Amino acid sequence: MSGAGSEIEIYKRMAARRAADLVEDGMTVGLGTGSTAKYMIERLGERVAEGLRIEAIPTSIDSAEKAVKAGIKLTDFSKHRVLDIAIDGADEVQRGTLHLVKGLGGALLREKIVAQSAKRFVVIVDNRKPVDHLGERAPIPVEVVFFGWECTAERLMECGAVVAKPRMDSHGHHYITDNGNLILDCVFGLIDDAEKLQQRIGSIVGVVEHGMFLNMTNEVFVAMDHGVERWERK
Amino acid sequence: MSGAGSEIEIYKRMAARRAADLVEDGMTVGLGTGSTAKYMIERLGERVAEGLRIEAIPTSIDSAEKAVKAGIKLTDFSKHRVLDIAIDGADEVQRGTLHLVKGLGGALLREKIVAQSAKRFVVIVDNRKPVDHLGERAPIPVEVVFFGWECTAERLMECGAVVAKPRMDSHGHHYITDNGNLILDCVFGLIDDAEKLQQRIGSIVGVVEHGMFLNMTNEVFVAMDHGVERWERK
Repeated sequence: MSGAGSEIEIYKRMAARRAADLVEDGMTVGLGTGSTAKYMIERLGERVAEGLRIEAIPTSIDSAEKAVKAGIKLTDFSKHRVLDIAIDGADEVQRGTLHLVKGLGGALLREKIVAQSAKRFVVIVDNRKPVDHLGERAPIPVEVVFFGWECTAERLMECGAVVAKPRMDSHGHHYITDNGNLILDCVFGLIDDAEKLQQRIGSIVGVVEHGMFLNMTNEVFVAMDHGVERWERK
Repeated sequence: MSGAGSEIEIYKRMAARRAADLVEDGMTVGLGTGSTAKYMIERLGERVAEGLRIEAIPTSIDSAEKAVKAGIKLTDFSKHRVLDIAIDGADEVQRGTLHLVKGLGGALLREKIVAQSAKRFVVIVDNRKPVDHLGERAPIPVEVVFFGWECTAERLMECGAVVAKPRMDSHGHHYITDNGNLILDCVFGLIDDAEKLQQRIGSIVGVVEHGMFLNMTNEVFVAMDHGVERWERK
């Protein structure tokens, strides 16, 4: 359905390349993770081969490997506190606000640290991802510490979430994040007031981070059936 | 100076025993950690030997070991979402509000999860711990994820903190919490508006939890030179 040759893949690749072409010589770049971000890393690799000098901080081991293979020099937060730009995918983008849901891939915490550290945060998605309300098509992943996760789940339910068991891996064990925590996928239904929900979730002890990225996105490239659209935050 | 025989130790033990005597048959109890909490566990062990039936959730491996040795039956959050009572020490107690600073021992996250889950949270301290403003005698420990901790430290400095390197262990390595994170000891000076500071710190991506326990304490037993005082939240 979404093989490399399908039309939507072509547009995803176009959107990712548009975003990659925002990167300028000498910049430090945050590299997102996922099926759209991989095209951005590919394009940056081509530009590095043509002489572009950049340093990049990846949001996952997978993206680190792809970047190294593409010839991109890696760095870390011990050398750079601020990134010039970060480019990443998303599971949902709210029209207008450009609020996001991220983290179905499990790397939400690193992705959020990178996004927060970037002067300019650019998102690349395909046309299945725009929504009118967060929660429309994806659960909100919430990263929680193992100790007392059952209590943390209860607190999340008090915020209106349907919470199943912690996310499992393909072997039937608890999925463990890069930071050693669990993920609770929380179904809130359509979310009317994301900022209020964020505040409530953030005040729960045991929650490390959640997958709502509010007021962080500067622009979005959306791969549509008819081409790539560029959205700015309103 | 504060050996087991000194007067302050005698009063700490008295305060801890007063708190332990609040526990009733059939209760689930959160067990704190530290030099005052150990007397509370000791007293609960005596009462269990006399027939008291309780189950307890410890906040550290150290307290778990002390509890087992004292004959106290342990349980966990898979069986109990709510504790009837939790008893713990603190590094600072603000007069009036009973806001706390905790976590110099490094177990702040588990202690906070236990405190949050308790119907009644009782604190036992000696007379060096009461303060007029949080931050008066102790830094605020902030538990942060390793990835990007340098950025997280910068964000904390923007909130007014003086942040040194992450806390070290006795071998000169980074001190790692039970949850695999680092501790940044943050000196804010005298804290005027703890609730506002909590909100700012809580919104920093990369912060897992911090050592301010606001609006959580129901009562405090303070070991003074002249005996034990009992304070309620005003």
